[in-house]
Amino acid sequence: MPPLIRPAVAADVPLILTLVRGLAAYEKLLHEVEATEEKLSVTLFGPRPAAECLLAFTPAGAPAGCAIFFTNYSTFLARPGLYLEDLFVLPEFRGQGIGKALLLHLARLANQRGCGRMEWTVLDWNQPAIDFYESLGAERKTDWTICRLSGAALARHA
Amino acid sequence: MPPLIRPAVAADVPLILTLVRGLAAYEKLLHEVEATEEKLSVTLFGPRPAAECLLAFTPAGAPAGCAIFFTNYSTFLARPGLYLEDLFVLPEFRGQGIGKALLLHLARLANQRGCGRMEWTVLDWNQPAIDFYESLGAERKTDWTICRLSGAALARHA
Repeated sequence: MPPLIRPAVAADVPLILTLVRGLAAYEKLLHEVEATEEKLSVTLFGPRPAAECLLAFTPAGAPAGCAIFFTNYSTFLARPGLYLEDLFVLPEFRGQGIGKALLLHLARLANQRGCGRMEWTVLDWNQPAIDFYESLGAERKTDWTICRLSGAALARHA
Repeated sequence: MPPLIRPAVAADVPLILTLVRGLAAYEKLLHEVEATEEKLSVTLFGPRPAAECLLAFTPAGAPAGCAIFFTNYSTFLARPGLYLEDLFVLPEFRGQGIGKALLLHLARLANQRGCGRMEWTVLDWNQPAIDFYESLGAERKTDWTICRLSGAALARHA
């Protein structure tokens, strides 16, 4: 049986935080996590939600994973797109097609919303993820690098 | 004198398209441009704008460049961020600090809006841009690669 996928609601915030921290631990980036239940509540379920969250559950009803995404924009296409910020499946539920179901759910959503493309990033050492994404038809934009201005470097331009 | 920077309005769409096409030509990606004045009008200035645009003018009033950006989201920070999709200065106005003025304008906006970070991408062969971004304190996330599902590969998941 396929997993059940539904949009997250405010009451899911503790679960979302658990999943976000699980992803950060997997990516060896737990030290970067500043998210709290309160911050997630305000930014995901407040008056101006900055992103959307899908939750996946096993057929037996156990929370198994999540996809957090927002709308981006391509000037070349002059069309919006969907950007997948986080995709995570708890270790005990991997290999059951839950990540694929979340990604395909999002691809259907992108098509329904008239989006020209769907994008996300992958860590270079995460070969299982790279193979999985390429099997779905995704291309890796290896000639582009993300630049980031944050923390003190951003604050000094205030 | 510094350039004048202001938010674009609907009447600026022909100028925005000229600048977007100028950027695509510089990036050797003109074949990817599907934007038209009508599409830009709907997606930037319709009922649900997908992105914002800043325009830069020389002190004499000549249109010189633009920055097109939207709000993204970091789950690790549980805060929104600003994502700079396009930054472009017309060749005849380069070397006058116009790109830097646009980028710093956006950094101030990010701080004002409580954003945790500002991000964009750079082509690996564009060394002048890389040097410029690093001089502002930006870090390049060289261990991450962008994945994209678009065109027929996206449509077959509808």
